[in-house]
Amino acid sequence: MGAISEDDLIARFFAPIAGPGALALKDDAACLTPPPGCDLILTKDALVAGVHFFADDPPEAIARKALRVNVSDLAAKGADPLGFLLALALPIGVETDWIEAFARGLGQDAARWAIPLLGGDTVKTPGPAMVSVTALGTAPTGRMVPRTGVRAGDLLFVSGTIGDSALGLRARLAPQRFAALSQGARQHLLARYLDPEPRLALARALREHASAGMDVSDGLVGDLTKMLRSSGVSAVIRLCDAPLSDAAKAAVAMEPALFETAMTGGDDYELLVAASPQKAKELQDDARAAGVPLTLIGEAVAGAGPLRFIGADGAQMRFARGSFSHF
Amino acid sequence: MGAISEDDLIARFFAPIAGPGALALKDDAACLTPPPGCDLILTKDALVAGVHFFADDPPEAIARKALRVNVSDLAAKGADPLGFLLALALPIGVETDWIEAFARGLGQDAARWAIPLLGGDTVKTPGPAMVSVTALGTAPTGRMVPRTGVRAGDLLFVSGTIGDSALGLRARLAPQRFAALSQGARQHLLARYLDPEPRLALARALREHASAGMDVSDGLVGDLTKMLRSSGVSAVIRLCDAPLSDAAKAAVAMEPALFETAMTGGDDYELLVAASPQKAKELQDDARAAGVPLTLIGEAVAGAGPLRFIGADGAQMRFARGSFSHF
Repeated sequence: MGAISEDDLIARFFAPIAGPGALALKDDAACLTPPPGCDLILTKDALVAGVHFFADDPPEAIARKALRVNVSDLAAKGADPLGFLLALALPIGVETDWIEAFARGLGQDAARWAIPLLGGDTVKTPGPAMVSVTALGTAPTGRMVPRTGVRAGDLLFVSGTIGDSALGLRARLAPQRFAALSQGARQHLLARYLDPEPRLALARALREHASAGMDVSDGLVGDLTKMLRSSGVSAVIRLCDAPLSDAAKAAVAMEPALFETAMTGGDDYELLVAASPQKAKELQDDARAAGVPLTLIGEAVAGAGPLRFIGADGAQMRFARGSFSHF
Repeated sequence: MGAISEDDLIARFFAPIAGPGALALKDDAACLTPPPGCDLILTKDALVAGVHFFADDPPEAIARKALRVNVSDLAAKGADPLGFLLALALPIGVETDWIEAFARGLGQDAARWAIPLLGGDTVKTPGPAMVSVTALGTAPTGRMVPRTGVRAGDLLFVSGTIGDSALGLRARLAPQRFAALSQGARQHLLARYLDPEPRLALARALREHASAGMDVSDGLVGDLTKMLRSSGVSAVIRLCDAPLSDAAKAAVAMEPALFETAMTGGDDYELLVAASPQKAKELQDDARAAGVPLTLIGEAVAGAGPLRFIGADGAQMRFARGSFSHF
């Protein structure tokens, strides 16, 4: 990076994408007046090169992913975006072009999700790049959608399609394993890994109709287990009904063991939603109107027993590893 | 780290130090109702092992420093702490004991500064440890102390003593250079580098009397230049009046070139404060009452010319490098 100072870096690349509360990134802190009648919803997800993304991913995509995994958490809580702060650790010797591209991707996405940059910190590191985002959102007071609110009898839904990203990661790591797929299917899976699509369009529907919500970042099976366990209930889940994209279906048809990868892999950034049977229709109608269909995959039942997962053949499935863990 | 999962890590070490808005760190996000009549003040500083601290520093001290550099920003803005979020990147193979000690230091400091943990993320990294903190504070609406508010004629103050931390870092890197100092003096300098003391006790005095404020993280000369330049004014600064601790005085007496190190080195986490002559007495009285004396070091003058720094001999000093830069 050499010639450019941190102040120049901020003024040149980040100040242009900052929101009004950011004070042009020229102060020690951001300042904003919280909207009245709202709670603040705060979330923080960090990404490390070589762990959560590939160091040679396009910098625009790295920036987008760092922002989107946080926007996804806001969506799962039924929150509207307010702004975000960014800590960016740059490897020694990073090119100015890389930073410029990163900021460009970040700025485009900040505009798309209406979540302005409020502040942050840029540091150098002798290690891999790291991006830490703190996202702020708002929800009407007392209306955040909790993870812990599932009640026995609630219907359980998931948005979009599951497993694309985990399969995309496998296709990235071992392309020959997916050689039999069409190029279009491969591209779809790879793109879903690189560019997750946070379901912010569902935030309002969740806030109005859901009893619980959570985003699927560590795998459907593991995250469902977390949501139900934290709510003190169990469930019967029909994984046979879990929504698969055509590309994921083709991958599973090619290699049936990939079904488990799809159900337990991470990085879906779809939403898990629980709603009472009375509210389920409105939830589904509003989700459809928002352009993000929800699929019914099961029902919560009383008791703290283990979840039952029903596979394609109607038999119960067991998982050696329910959830992707970064440790 | 091996046997411990991220969820266990959070439940065991971090949940016990979380505030009420953190929802026991069991949800995707924190939720808090902002106090009415207040602006939110947001700041984010990240620290990387080998850049901002030594990898073999005590984990408690690393945690404290990560929190304190952020609390220092809140203090400089006249803000009261509300809470913080933490992203912690842990090197592969880190010991559970290290994490436990880190969390202990963090919890003690969170209690000391009344800034509860609200949420965060724990990730592994193939690189050095990194700690990214986002701190939230509040100030009465419209009352945040800006960096850009210095007016011509304002008196310029600095809190505590300047240069200890930069000298402590030098003593850490080259102990033999400081061998002639007393052990007590060396200890003082080393401790100031390891454990900065954010001047939160001054937040209220700044809010009530200051026209501008900023914390000194990148060196007195450079940060003063930043504050005055961003305010569109210049200044005459009597560095001969800059407050030095007895230990720093002894170091400078031993090696006069260290005076420049003290004036331009980083990590002081003292506060720069500008106040009109009418408000200066009350500011100083309130600071004294808060237990953190302020020292008058200069006066802002109209115009955008370069700042004039007057050294001990009454002659103007020039600096090859006004400010510590992490790049």
